[in-house]
Amino acid sequence: MPAYTDSREAHLRRLRRIEGQVRGLQRMVSEDVYCIDVLTQVSAATRALQSFALELLSEHMSGCVVEAARTGRQEGEAKVQEAAEAIARLVRS
Amino acid sequence: MPAYTDSREAHLRRLRRIEGQVRGLQRMVSEDVYCIDVLTQVSAATRALQSFALELLSEHMSGCVVEAARTGRQEGEAKVQEAAEAIARLVRS
Amino acid sequence: MPAYTDSREAHLRRLRRIEGQVRGLQRMVSEDVYCIDVLTQVSAATRALQSFALELLSEHMSGCVVEAARTGRQEGEAKVQEAAEAIARLVRS
Amino acid sequence: MPAYTDSREAHLRRLRRIEGQVRGLQRMVSEDVYCIDVLTQVSAATRALQSFALELLSEHMSGCVVEAARTGRQEGEAKVQEAAEAIARLVRS
Repeated sequence: MPAYTDSREAHLRRLRRIEGQVRGLQRMVSEDVYCIDVLTQVSAATRALQSFALELLSEHMSGCVVEAARTGRQEGEAKVQEAAEAIARLVRS
Repeated sequence: MPAYTDSREAHLRRLRRIEGQVRGLQRMVSEDVYCIDVLTQVSAATRALQSFALELLSEHMSGCVVEAARTGRQEGEAKVQEAAEAIARLVRS
Repeated sequence: MPAYTDSREAHLRRLRRIEGQVRGLQRMVSEDVYCIDVLTQVSAATRALQSFALELLSEHMSGCVVEAARTGRQEGEAKVQEAAEAIARLVRS
Repeated sequence: MPAYTDSREAHLRRLRRIEGQVRGLQRMVSEDVYCIDVLTQVSAATRALQSFALELLSEHMSGCVVEAARTGRQEGEAKVQEAAEAIARLVRS
């Protein structure tokens, strides 16, 4: 079972809040709110998504990666390789 | 009227697609989808938000900033200063 | 003449400090300093480069972009377009 | 001994290339090269630093983190926690 099962409710709350921020952006655009204020809200939503990603990644590494490493060095390195690619996508996005 | 009024519909379509991505993330978390796959989807949503921000910023500069500069050098520099702060928030988020 | 001529000395001081940080990284790697400490220093150098870029961009917009907009709307929009592409490269790097 | 000892020469070559890029930036500023071209070079140097960081991090996780996890679950989780903080600094810089 994925590492994040225990904290699933916290993740869902976080994502619902981000969904609310994106709906707030739609309202701002509909109401012709000043661009700079819309951009400030986009930055907030982007940071919230990144924090969610960092939390999920941290749980994944504490769970799946450590578990795999305890099963065998090769298993651990395979999981690390996979996590490293996800980290690269986050850093570059 | 804000510079983005003309392209408002395109912005709203974009934001609705991002809202769909965030709801997709909730579904993935609810269904215990593998963390790495969730993270890939978070990176996609983050990039989509950044593209929206860059588009909005570009329109803002072509519209408000150029207009202000044509009114007066000081007006132009004030709008540039404001835009530069928004850009810094984007680069750092 | 480019907008940044006046502040050239400040920019050069900043870049020399960043060069020092990168040489510091070489020293750390040569001396087998712990990875995590090397990574902390890489983050510091990356942030310093970004701050330099944001400063340069802000000057460019106050100078060249405002000047071009005052010459003509079309000239202003051409400079804005060029700046928007540079901003996109910064946000995505 | 740190995980990156074997690849130390490759890391040093990479960092010397980045140092060359930063010196190139100083030359560009000294010669009043057009801002946008300086910014393009800053983006290249930033991306090079990030790639170095991602490579170092990947090695650290394959080495130290897997090793620690094989010693004990708690040791593994401590190293993961430390790596997660370094990743957060990279994502946010």
